Order: sequence, then structure tokens, then C-alpha cells
Amino acid sequence: MITIIMGSKSDVKIAEKAVSILKEFKIDYEVRVASAHRTPELVEEIVKNSKSKVFIAIAGLAAHLPGVVAAMTTKPVIAVPVESKLDGLDALLSAVQMPPGIPAACVGIDRGENAAILAAEMLSISDERIEKKLAEFRENQKKKIFSDDAEVSSLFKN
Amino acid sequence: MITIIMGSKSDVKIAEKAVSILKEFKIDYEVRVASAHRTPELVEEIVKNSKSKVFIAIAGLAAHLPGVVAAMTTKPVIAVPVESKLDGLDALLSAVQMPPGIPAACVGIDRGENAAILAAEMLSISDERIEKKLAEFRENQKKKIFSDDAEVSSLFKN
Amino acid sequence: MITIIMGSKSDVKIAEKAVSILKEFKIDYEVRVASAHRTPELVEEIVKNSKSKVFIAIAGLAAHLPGVVAAMTTKPVIAVPVESKLDGLDALLSAVQMPPGIPAACVGIDRGENAAILAAEMLSISDERIEKKLAEFRENQKKKIFSDDAEVSSLFKN
Amino acid sequence: MITIIMGSKSDVKIAEKAVSILKEFKIDYEVRVASAHRTPELVEEIVKNSKSKVFIAIAGLAAHLPGVVAAMTTKPVIAVPVESKLDGLDALLSAVQMPPGIPAACVGIDRGENAAILAAEMLSISDERIEKKLAEFRENQKKKIFSDDAEVSSLFKN
Amino acid sequence: MITIIMGSKSDVKIAEKAVSILKEFKIDYEVRVASAHRTPELVEEIVKNSKSKVFIAIAGLAAHLPGVVAAMTTKPVIAVPVESKLDGLDALLSAVQMPPGIPAACVGIDRGENAAILAAEMLSISDERIEKKLAEFRENQKKKIFSDDAEVSSLFKN
Amino acid sequence: MITIIMGSKSDVKIAEKAVSILKEFKIDYEVRVASAHRTPELVEEIVKNSKSKVFIAIAGLAAHLPGVVAAMTTKPVIAVPVESKLDGLDALLSAVQMPPGIPAACVGIDRGENAAILAAEMLSISDERIEKKLAEFRENQKKKIFSDDAEVSSLFKN
Amino acid sequence: MITIIMGSKSDVKIAEKAVSILKEFKIDYEVRVASAHRTPELVEEIVKNSKSKVFIAIAGLAAHLPGVVAAMTTKPVIAVPVESKLDGLDALLSAVQMPPGIPAACVGIDRGENAAILAAEMLSISDERIEKKLAEFRENQKKKIFSDDAEVSSLFKN
Amino acid sequence: MITIIMGSKSDVKIAEKAVSILKEFKIDYEVRVASAHRTPELVEEIVKNSKSKVFIAIAGLAAHLPGVVAAMTTKPVIAVPVESKLDGLDALLSAVQMPPGIPAACVGIDRGENAAILAAEMLSISDERIEKKLAEFRENQKKKIFSDDAEVSSLFKN
Repeated sequence: MITIIMGSKSDVKIAEKAVSILKEFKIDYEVRVASAHRTPELVEEIVKNSKSKVFIAIAGLAAHLPGVVAAMTTKPVIAVPVESKLDGLDALLSAVQMPPGIPAACVGIDRGENAAILAAEMLSISDERIEKKLAEFRENQKKKIFSDDAEVSSLFKN
Repeated sequence: MITIIMGSKSDVKIAEKAVSILKEFKIDYEVRVASAHRTPELVEEIVKNSKSKVFIAIAGLAAHLPGVVAAMTTKPVIAVPVESKLDGLDALLSAVQMPPGIPAACVGIDRGENAAILAAEMLSISDERIEKKLAEFRENQKKKIFSDDAEVSSLFKN
Repeated sequence: MITIIMGSKSDVKIAEKAVSILKEFKIDYEVRVASAHRTPELVEEIVKNSKSKVFIAIAGLAAHLPGVVAAMTTKPVIAVPVESKLDGLDALLSAVQMPPGIPAACVGIDRGENAAILAAEMLSISDERIEKKLAEFRENQKKKIFSDDAEVSSLFKN
Repeated sequence: MITIIMGSKSDVKIAEKAVSILKEFKIDYEVRVASAHRTPELVEEIVKNSKSKVFIAIAGLAAHLPGVVAAMTTKPVIAVPVESKLDGLDALLSAVQMPPGIPAACVGIDRGENAAILAAEMLSISDERIEKKLAEFRENQKKKIFSDDAEVSSLFKN
Repeated sequence: MITIIMGSKSDVKIAEKAVSILKEFKIDYEVRVASAHRTPELVEEIVKNSKSKVFIAIAGLAAHLPGVVAAMTTKPVIAVPVESKLDGLDALLSAVQMPPGIPAACVGIDRGENAAILAAEMLSISDERIEKKLAEFRENQKKKIFSDDAEVSSLFKN
Repeated sequence: MITIIMGSKSDVKIAEKAVSILKEFKIDYEVRVASAHRTPELVEEIVKNSKSKVFIAIAGLAAHLPGVVAAMTTKPVIAVPVESKLDGLDALLSAVQMPPGIPAACVGIDRGENAAILAAEMLSISDERIEKKLAEFRENQKKKIFSDDAEVSSLFKN
Repeated sequence: MITIIMGSKSDVKIAEKAVSILKEFKIDYEVRVASAHRTPELVEEIVKNSKSKVFIAIAGLAAHLPGVVAAMTTKPVIAVPVESKLDGLDALLSAVQMPPGIPAACVGIDRGENAAILAAEMLSISDERIEKKLAEFRENQKKKIFSDDAEVSSLFKN
Repeated sequence: MITIIMGSKSDVKIAEKAVSILKEFKIDYEVRVASAHRTPELVEEIVKNSKSKVFIAIAGLAAHLPGVVAAMTTKPVIAVPVESKLDGLDALLSAVQMPPGIPAACVGIDRGENAAILAAEMLSISDERIEKKLAEFRENQKKKIFSDDAEVSSLFKN
């Protein structure tokens, strides 16, 4: 089980990228909205009651949600900074520059899909089914690039 | 009463700048260490039990402390971002870019003294004694500049 | 009474966000246009004649307005940096990096609503009615998130 | 088993921070030097022959090592950007902004200890012993802060 | 022969700028799609089997492709960082800040045409035909500016 | 006489802002297109043959034009950095960070009108007519703000 | 006459660079300390009573001094941003990004000497003596470089 | 023959890194000092009279030298931005963000050695001796890393 928490309903498109991957990998998930600043008690309720093995926290601006979740669990917390102001640099620095002792695993700005893949990689440490899924996923990615390469290289043949 | 919370004992020099001003203004204060990430429950205990009218939160890196305090009180929270990595840009953006609904009153990087003066200004809304102290403080600042001006302008007389 | 000053008529949308909150909180306000550079005497006239307890200064680019207002009063001055060039980084740094002695209370880029909430928090130090309004406002924010959470979590039920 | 790879021997101090945590947690590890650019074949040899469950890749400047390792395994790869030029912003962006499909789990600049804690959190998904160690570690962190708080708050008693 | 490799099919517009110049200069080229992260083996296959004298690597985000190509050849590798997030600053720093020993020749963000001109300049060291073409190209650039100058200066005649 | 040089015909909108001011001030001007990189000899021809008292150089990206003009004359050179990539930060830093000995007078990004006003200020040192024009211009600016203030303050009357 | 105003006595080293040039050029000057925020009335007194033809304003952090001076005179105002926090980026953006209508002539960070040379260039528009001094100064700069070139090129002779 | 030009004698340490590589590769070179701004005619004299196949231009701040050299030759010009202010970001952007038509081949900040290696790579297109030298150099780099790896991995054996 993976818990995806977004800091605001407006982050739903980033969450959808993660959900799409988790569905493909047949990994259970729940998607929640809870603000680190407006509803810290809801964040706490979600995290403390959860049986999830990995958390994905999606937030923009002063993106404190990943850090607040990380403070409440020793399960891995994946941070997805969201572009809103300053091209997302505020969210990136707020998410990644965690102090010693409480890490967050930060992926790129708006990279919901990578958060889900990283979560799957973490689960794959002890789950062979997911390990195989990841290998397949990689193969399909490769095929897509090989096919793009064939298309583009013939297109530009001089 | 003002509560000063620093996210790490290493921020003590910034807190001292604030304390020095509060002493001068004869404003009661307490100084605490509590990490938003390592001891969220201690932050909560300090904020919820406090009778303070203003909070000053001092933190570096992904400086979540001001936001976490702001989420627990409707009293004004003054944020002091601390220079540690990236010249303090990470702390500044983490402190100032709060989402709609939960503001923090951010001062400049490492500006502990300004946090205390701002707190005094807030208290002065309903406290004439502090209003007078602020006026005096301004006068003294002016005198210092006038004296610096006299010294420098004669030094460079051409 | 709160005085909102914007540096240019083009900042009116940010001012409206502040006004909307102040109306909801039934706090008196006035809204003025006065440029720190083009009409310093108008800024002085507004600030020196004002009975306001808090000032909100909204400005973009080299956003000197908050600092210029802060230099004329010992009342708290809230700075709202406006995005115009460089994603608003110029306005943010011009507003927040005030020298020792003259603080401005900076909120996030384009965050007019947070400036008004922060002003209300400052007034609430000595005004129980506003303190209650703030508590209600927080409750409504929470309800909105709880409702968003219910909606989103059922939408993504897998 | 955790494999720590640094891109240059000069990153050894950051690696030591990670090793210190792994020792404390009694997690097996190996420490290697392999440059993504100067010795890609050595990186490949290390990654392909490894039985490690998690990789930690430490690199400065155009920090490609984490991405190059991530391209060779579906195990989680933790990136530690190192400060060398531009305050480490180059390494941070090179490490965290991975394209869709190949994530790296980025921690803060120079945060070797957090990389190790994050690795432990990943292992703890299926290892109760480490889960307990993490809980203990958190407790000790808390105690340290509580003790710092006691010391500092009495020091500043006014 | 010049080999142009783009990290993703979405970079094709930048590649077209390069191709347009190479056509004009009658320099042979191939255009390939190969991801440093998703298909490192395809990058290797392209580079190791190539007879090209210069490589142009086009990539956005954590733009590792130029560095990965440079690690596989001692032929000059020209890097074209692509704007995707953070205005392309991530791609620029990932491409240009190469460690000692393995350089990439970085041109400006999205500057596909300059990559091709630079490649032509490198070939011109030992190819007089291209040297002449470059001189002609410069002349035509000059004529265009002279003609723009004539048009604009008469337009604004006061 | 003022000479306005833009590095590319695409900068014409910024030049128009300057021209509009110079017309209003009845200051003679010429507008030229000359690239520091593509036509250095044209830049030299324009600058060396000019009787202009001030130069305005408008350029984007690696904005070398102001510096190249400044190297050819001891007349004041006003630099206008143009937004093209990286929000204009590249042009700003290229224009303003001149080495010791050869200054450029840099105005804000895309601020063609300010370049013209600054040029007028320089001429006004020895030209009373322009000094008066500048005073009038200031007055009109003030009136515009006073009128905006009247409009906005009545609009928001609560 | 040139008036040099620094925002704080701590900027004196930057002022000395300017003074050294003005002495060499035998241009009269005065050096003053006046803070835009702490002593706006002193700034006003200096500027309004001055007969100076050019002002040089030196300031760090949220460097409002140049803009505040520019608002009080139609004489040219040269801004020298000073490095204090954030490598001086805050001072640079606060000084250069002036709104339409009120320009400041910004030179590079800490470039006091360039401010003085630029001031001399402005005076030279109507002062042949200074024009000659500038030509001599340029010649001496050239000689220094030619001599450095002779020294270095023979040193590295291979 | 390679011509190394530095914009100021103070850049000599960066030039030495390049010279050290060129000596090792037995490639002829000359080292010159010539400022794009203070001595444009010297730059022109050096470039126009040179028989060099590649130019290396080293400069800090608003680093125009590489662009100015590139405007005078169709030979490849390698730019080395030097750290002086703003961590070298000003020099990097001034060097790399060249307009369409006139490329510079930019290497990392202070990377004199990489400029020389890149120059050697360009020469190697038509010079087998240098191609072999480059292959040897790569081998030695590899050996150094392998030896570092052996040393470090045994040091950390747990």
C-alpha cells in the first residue's frame, strides 16, 4: 500500500501521474488531500493510522508537507515539489534541503510518475513481483526510445 | 511575552540578536529549541501551552519551523531564515512562500534583531510603552547614522 | 484600520485579495496608490496622517515601497512582493532583505490574502473579536480541506 | 547490503557521514569510487555485480553518477549532491531533475547521513530489526533536542 | 559526419535547427534518439560504432546525455541544454559543469543552430571547404544585420 | 544627440519605448541595429563616427553590446538588458557586471523608457531645457499617480 | 561636484574605490553616510541641498538608497550594489530593477571605481578637461594590459 | 597551435591548468593577456594575426572575451568562465548564452584543464598523434580512479 498525499486539491494532476503508474504496477494506493499548514491534524491522522509502506507527498510553494510527513513516520517519504511560483524552485528547495536526521526522497519538479516508480523500486526490495514489473517497465521504455530512434533517424536521413 | 523557537541549537547566535533587542525593550521572552522535524510534539507543546502574543521561529535549510508554528496558532509568527547552504536561499524560500491562508511574517536572512523589532512593533499596537521605546530606538539609530555621517564626511573632505 | 498601499495601479488584483479578507473579517481599511519613487511625498502624507495600526505595502520590481513606509512609522509594515520580472525574485529580495533596525514583515509573492490575514493576526493580539474570526477562518479552511480530501480520496478509490 | 559510490575520492567526507549511520544501524555496506564520466565501465561493473538492495551515489558539479547508476538497476538509487561550485546548485539540479521513467531519490546538499537514514528506511519496509533501530534513532534525536531545549531555555531565562 | 543525438523525441525542434545549418554547409549528419538513462546501451552502440568526427547531444532537465557521450569517445561533444523546467537552468548546469578530465562544449539554451556552427568550425580546422562556407555564412549574417540596420534606422529617422 | 543601438531587430519594441521618451523630450536620436558578435565593425563604425553624447545599447542573452560600445568611447553607455531566456537574468548579468575601468550604466530588464530618461538626466547636467522637461515629466508622473490614487481609493471605499 | 552617499558606514571600502578615481580625475566630491530607511530625512537634506551634478549611492541588502535618491532629484543617480548576503544578488536586483519613470544607473556589485568613472563620463559631456582625463585613463589601462600581456606571454613561452 | 587569452592577469591560475595539459599533450600554445573592454584592439591583433587552430578565452564577471574573440574568427573558441562574483554565475551566463550565429564552446566554471582537453579533442579530428595522447590520458584517468577505488573500498571495509 502506498499513500499519496497532496497539499492542495490543485495538485491533482501530479497525483494522477503517480496513480497511473501504480495502477500499471498493480500496487494498492490511496490518494488524500491534507495540508501541512491548514490541517496538520489530518496529516497526522492519515500517517499514524496508515499501514502504507511508502508515502508520496506532493506540494508546491513552501512545500513543508513531505517534511511534516517524514517527521511522523520512519517509513520512506517521497517528495514531489510542484511548480507554482518561481518555476518551482521554492518547492524544490523546501522539499529537498531537509535537516540531518529526517530525510525526504525528493524527485524532480512535477515528477509524479517518478515518485510512483521510486516507490515501486522501494517495494521491490522485498517483492519479486514488483521487481519483475519494473524490469518490464524498463523494457517498454527502451522499446519506445528504440522506436522513436528508428522513426526520427529515418525522418532525418540526408 | 514573546516565544523565540530555534530549530537547532546551532541557530543560537541569531536568537541572541533577537534577545538583545527584547532586553533593551524590556519585553518578556523565552527561548526554546524545538525541531519541526525531529520533535514536532515539542513544538506543539510549546505553542499550545504558550501565552505569548508573538512567536519568532528561527530555522535554516528547508526551514519548516515557522510554518509549523503558524499552523498551530493564530498569533503572528515571525520567520527568520538562517544561512546554512545555498547562501540561505533555501531557508528564505521555505519560510516566506507560505500557501494562502497561513501566513508567516518573514524578515531577512539571519536578521534576528529585526524579528524582535517587528515583534515589538506588533505589541506596540496596543502598548504605548513599547511604542515609545520604538520611537526612542529609531531616534538612537538616527543619531548613530548622523554621527557616522559626520565622521565619514570629514574623513573624506577633499 | 488597515492601510493598503500599492506602488502602481497595476497591482490592484493583489490588493483585492487583501480587501476580500479584510471585508470578511469586518476590519476597516483604506486602499491607496502611491509610488515610493514617483510620489514619495504622497507616501509620506498617507503614512504620517494615518491612524492605521498596520500597513500593507504591495509592490513589484525593485519593491522599495514597504521599506519606505517602514522608515516612516513604527507600526508593523507587511510587504507583498509582486511578480513582474524574474518571476518576482527581484520584488521578494527587495522587500525582505531589509537592513538591521527597520524590519518589514514579508509574505509570499502575490500573497495579498496572506498579508490581510497576517494583519488580522497582529490586531488580534489586543482584539478578541478578530481572534475569534481568525479561529473561525481556520476552521473553515480545515473544513474545505477535509471536504476536498473526501472528494479526492473517493475519486481515486482503487 | 548498501553500496555507496562516490564520483571522486574528494567526496570521502560525505561518504563518511553515511558510513557512520550504517555502522550505527549495523547495516552492511561497501564504499566505492567510480566516476560516471571517467570510468563508466567501473560503475557498470559495480552496479551489475552488486547484490545491494539500495545504492547511494555521491557526486558534485554536473552530478551524473546517480542517474547513471539508476539507469543500470531497478533498485532504489539515493543521490547526494555535493557542494563544489555554485554552492552545490549545479549538483542538486543535475541529481534531482531526472527525466520521466528513471527516478533518483535526492537528499539535501552534502547530506550523507540522510542518505544512509533513507536507505535504512527503505530496508525497514521488510526488516523489523532496522525498523526498531530507526525508532530508537528517532528517540535519541528527540532526546538530544529536548536536552538542547532545556540547556538553551535556562541559559536565556530572563 | 556529425552525429546528433537527442535524449527524447520531444527535443526534435532543437535538432532541426542544427540539421538546417548542416544541410546549408553540406555536412553529412545522422539524427538519433537515445536516452542516457532509459537506453544507455543504445547511446553506447551509437557512439562506439560511429565514424563521426563530432557529436551533438541535445537534452533537457538533468541533461546527462552530453556527459555520457563524452565519457565514451575522445571526439569533441557539443552539449545543447534544452529549456523544460526552471527555464533550462537545470539542463545548462547539468551540461556545462563537467568534472575535470571529461569536457563537453556547451552552447546556449535551445541553441541547436549554434551547435551545428560550432561543429562546422571544428571540422574547418582541417577542411578548407567548410572554412570557406563559414566565411560565407558570416558574410550573410553581416548582410542581414546591415540590411536590418538600414531598415530600422530609416524607420526611426526623426 | 543620442544613439540607440539594438543587437537584433527583434529588440525593436524596447527601442520604441526609448524613442517615445526622447521624442517627448525633443532630444535628437538615431536608432541603429548592430550586433557585437555578428557585425563588430558596424558597431565600431557607428560609435567612432558618432557625435552622440550618450549611447543606449539594447541586447538580450549574453548581452555584450553595451560593453563593446563602452570599450570604444568614453561617453556614457546605458545598457538595457532584454528578456529572452532565463527571464533576462543572463542579459542583466552580462550587461551590469562590467570589469573595473569600463562601466556601463545598466537599467532594469526591458526598461527602454528608463534608458531614455537616464540619458536625458545626463544631458540635463549642462542643458537647462532638458532639466525643465525632466521636472515637468516628474510632475506628470506624480499627477498620474495622484489620479490613480483618487480613483482606486474611492473604488475601494468600505 | 559629485555626492557619494553610502547607506551604512560599513560600505566605506566601496566608497574609497570611487574617491580614489575622483581624486585622480580632480573632480570635487563629498562623501556622506545616510540610510534610506533609518534616516530618510538626512537623505532628503543631502540631496535637496546639494549642487552636485551626479549622485553615487552605495548600498547592500534591499538596496533602496539609489532609488530613494533618484526619487528626489532629476540628476543622474549611479547605484553601486554591495555584496553582503546572497552574494549581492539582493542588492543588485533592488538597485537595478527600478520601475518605469525613475531610472538608476546601476554598475556591477562592489564596483565603486566604475561608479566614479561613469560619473566622470557623464560630466565629460560638457567638460573637455574630464574628457581628456578619461582618454588618458583609458590609455593607462591599455598600457597596463599591454605590459601584463608582455609579462605573461614571455612567462609562458613554450 | 592554441592561443590562450585571459581577460586579466588575475586569471593566470586558470590558464596554468590549461597550459599544464597542453604541455603534457605536446601541443604548441601561446598565452596572452588582452581585455575585451580595455584593449579590444589588442584582442583583434592577437586573433587576426594568429595561425592558431583553436582559441581558449578565459574571463570572469561580464565575460565578453570569448564572444569578442568568436566574432573575429571562424575557428572554434572555447570559453572558460571564471568565478569572481556571484559564484561565477555571471561569467557562465555571459560566456555560454551566445546569440544565434556566433557560438562559443563553454566549459565549466574555472575549468582551464577541460578547455585544453577540449581543444586537443578538436585537433584530434585531423591529428592521430593527439588522438592517441587523448586515449592514453583517458587510460591514466581511469587508472587513477581504479586506484582510488581500491584504496577507498579497502579503507571502508566493514
